[in-house]
Amino acid sequence: MTIPAEAFLLDRSLEQTLQHQLRRQIVEGVLEGRFRAGEKLPSSRSLARHLGVARVTVTQVFAELVATDYLTSRDRAGLFISGRIETAQATAGTRPAPVPFDWSLHVEDRYARAQRRDRVSDWRRYRFPFVYGQADPQLVDLSAWRDCAVRSLGRREFAPMTGDLYGEDDPELVDYIARHILPRRGIRARAEDILLTLGAQNALWLVVEILLARGGACAIEDPCYPGLREILSHTGARIHPVPVDAHGLPPDAIPAGLKAVFTTASHHSPTGATMPVERRRALLRHALAQGCAIVEDDYEFEMSYSGSSLPALKAMDEAGAVIHIGSFSKSVFPGLRLGYIVAAPPVISEARALRSLMLRHPPGLLQRTLANFLSLGHYDAQMNRMRRAYAARREVMDTAIRDSGLQLAPGGGQGGSSFWLTLPAGIDAARLGHILRERDVLIEPGHPFFAEPAMGGTFYRLAYSSIPVERIPEGVARIAQAIRELL
Amino acid sequence: MTIPAEAFLLDRSLEQTLQHQLRRQIVEGVLEGRFRAGEKLPSSRSLARHLGVARVTVTQVFAELVATDYLTSRDRAGLFISGRIETAQATAGTRPAPVPFDWSLHVEDRYARAQRRDRVSDWRRYRFPFVYGQADPQLVDLSAWRDCAVRSLGRREFAPMTGDLYGEDDPELVDYIARHILPRRGIRARAEDILLTLGAQNALWLVVEILLARGGACAIEDPCYPGLREILSHTGARIHPVPVDAHGLPPDAIPAGLKAVFTTASHHSPTGATMPVERRRALLRHALAQGCAIVEDDYEFEMSYSGSSLPALKAMDEAGAVIHIGSFSKSVFPGLRLGYIVAAPPVISEARALRSLMLRHPPGLLQRTLANFLSLGHYDAQMNRMRRAYAARREVMDTAIRDSGLQLAPGGGQGGSSFWLTLPAGIDAARLGHILRERDVLIEPGHPFFAEPAMGGTFYRLAYSSIPVERIPEGVARIAQAIRELL
Repeated sequence: MTIPAEAFLLDRSLEQTLQHQLRRQIVEGVLEGRFRAGEKLPSSRSLARHLGVARVTVTQVFAELVATDYLTSRDRAGLFISGRIETAQATAGTRPAPVPFDWSLHVEDRYARAQRRDRVSDWRRYRFPFVYGQADPQLVDLSAWRDCAVRSLGRREFAPMTGDLYGEDDPELVDYIARHILPRRGIRARAEDILLTLGAQNALWLVVEILLARGGACAIEDPCYPGLREILSHTGARIHPVPVDAHGLPPDAIPAGLKAVFTTASHHSPTGATMPVERRRALLRHALAQGCAIVEDDYEFEMSYSGSSLPALKAMDEAGAVIHIGSFSKSVFPGLRLGYIVAAPPVISEARALRSLMLRHPPGLLQRTLANFLSLGHYDAQMNRMRRAYAARREVMDTAIRDSGLQLAPGGGQGGSSFWLTLPAGIDAARLGHILRERDVLIEPGHPFFAEPAMGGTFYRLAYSSIPVERIPEGVARIAQAIRELL
Repeated sequence: MTIPAEAFLLDRSLEQTLQHQLRRQIVEGVLEGRFRAGEKLPSSRSLARHLGVARVTVTQVFAELVATDYLTSRDRAGLFISGRIETAQATAGTRPAPVPFDWSLHVEDRYARAQRRDRVSDWRRYRFPFVYGQADPQLVDLSAWRDCAVRSLGRREFAPMTGDLYGEDDPELVDYIARHILPRRGIRARAEDILLTLGAQNALWLVVEILLARGGACAIEDPCYPGLREILSHTGARIHPVPVDAHGLPPDAIPAGLKAVFTTASHHSPTGATMPVERRRALLRHALAQGCAIVEDDYEFEMSYSGSSLPALKAMDEAGAVIHIGSFSKSVFPGLRLGYIVAAPPVISEARALRSLMLRHPPGLLQRTLANFLSLGHYDAQMNRMRRAYAARREVMDTAIRDSGLQLAPGGGQGGSSFWLTLPAGIDAARLGHILRERDVLIEPGHPFFAEPAMGGTFYRLAYSSIPVERIPEGVARIAQAIRELL
């Protein structure tokens, strides 16, 4: 790599000579590790032109640094960082430190303190990663995605998609979602009912912010998706966790006087339970009678294995009381960060204004690439491939779980891309997780899912979207072995 | 296009027969415009398999719809939406409307009501669009960007970039920013000092949220970037607008007891004024003496025309009191939505936790594509091309403004990609803007930039990043003509 001339900057207001400044910048760059062995310096001509100095100023600095072993010259090829100087670890020691600014008076540490610490970002290093929500790159149609990306980079599509869209979305993507994705869930929606988001997390955040940022009360499922509880905990909202059973959220148990109920009716997160139709009707009746909004997180509707999938709650919602959240993270890939909200226009226009304020809009090129991926049929093909692969893994999981004597929790094997399991009395899931990590196995202990974390001690989740199928039996066997040792 | 079988969904809990449901879904799809003339139906075999019904159920429905002109058959090619049925405008009339849910009790309309309405999203339709912040696709190296996108879609890079990164960023992009972008601004930073954001708007939002969401007071420049005032207006913070002069924000005029000062020192937004070094030192002294943080929005540092650019405020900030915000929106393209915050680690870790909560992380593939674009030298090449093109346009603008007798405001021609102008007494910029729009010319009236919008009536901004150079003289002449008519 060549270090660009633009990486250097002289400050004419300083007392130091320009030559001294340039030398110092190269030396410090080497010592601090910004310039690395083998990287090429810009030519003295281009650097002099960029800095607005005589070329001899630059050549003198270069000559001095070759003499002191910072730089090395290769015949005709130019000057390079030599690699013969030991680099310092940090910049701290090189200057007299002034009194540092006291950020503790400014930054409250609200978010950093409260954030989840249970996720393992280097999960790929583990041989048996039963982690939820990560993709298997083998199942993604990489070359189709690449074609769609290139297509969205054609001159015709490029111009509109690279502009600042202000608050708008790619009309082609919105159109496809309205016409061909939502009908799969039984939902009929027009463009004004749809807002694109940076994934389901962003959708939940926007919805919570517009419904509950100024207080009020809401119900969540217990256990539930930890990210939702995390978002709600930063608002002034009162949170009522409602224990779920093997059929998901029981409408009778929801208190009166709430502004909103959050539910994962299709596949309860994390147990996987599917809410039966009669319960869905009861939930909608409750919402209408109470004037309480329903937020439906339909986060992995594509992954239904127990027969054909039920319509979404939103499909049964003639009054418009349901805010529906969907995501392409599970079906395309998690790093895509594209999802959507479907709701009545007053909700959408408020969420759009807030989104515009906080980030303008999801990147245009990605929106158009996804629109191409959907409309050219790659999404359907990928879904079918994923469904087949996950169904095969699910069967292997199921057999392995049975064979090794692990215990499913009630409703814990109904759907989605994971199983929800329970432990014998006296074994704590966090402790089990800790032991298994030493044995190259990642499981997800139940604690973060529960309003009262201790309640999660007897539960854990095993997901199979990112573990190769042939490693499943051995992984499950290791879990069973660790449990036996703990008993 | 073929309508995927997955676009249909039967609900076995309904009283209607499955055949009736399928027919209704096709008919309604046509009437509501979701299915369009010429679109192909899935084969009866694949649809029957997807729905879990006998094939004859599907073929009977298809036959009936051919008979009633909804569908049309083409020999061997299959069945298509006929286009002979008139589509209804909306779904509303087709069902008995239930009592609609009353969202006015839930959604406060805080954001939608307060949002900017001065931006023209169809600016491309105007012949003379002097709008700020939009890209000229001619200047973007489309094929280089495409190569970088394809490179980031290689199997090796794809896997890590398509996963859920939790709170992390692409280390390659962060590394390049630290080693080669920030040094251009005189800034030395390590990875833990840097957070990637969805553009500068998102960076400002995060910073405001962690510094001021719970109240306190801050100073902003007056006039200033309207998006910043908009973000601040939704917090509980007291806002002190400080009038700028031809050298930007005067430190002496900043009140005591503030938590933060927001400044665009390099190019004041919207006037373009550059803050001299002595003033920057005074601003830093003020901040340290007062324990007041400085937020530096360095939104278009690459576009400096008045000599070589000055180091950023952050470069002079040995105590770590400055939060520096940068963006690739002006230099790569605005729809990219990638920017960064550089600040002391306590600020970065809090902003990272909040970002993680609201959207997880900027899309991985885009981060890696940008990292490639930067490290392969395309960014520098594009910058040089843009600088040359903008310098040429700037000269044409400058001449046209002089020739036509338009009046620059003090400091209004110093830098950036725009000019800041003033109007003769008695002419209101909004009225001028309205008249010019009828004449195919877009200008930006001063109102949204001022704390007291009426103060902006005598100012307007002319940007030239998205108007072809050959149209500039005619566009400027039309502005001058309209002003003469109004006098």
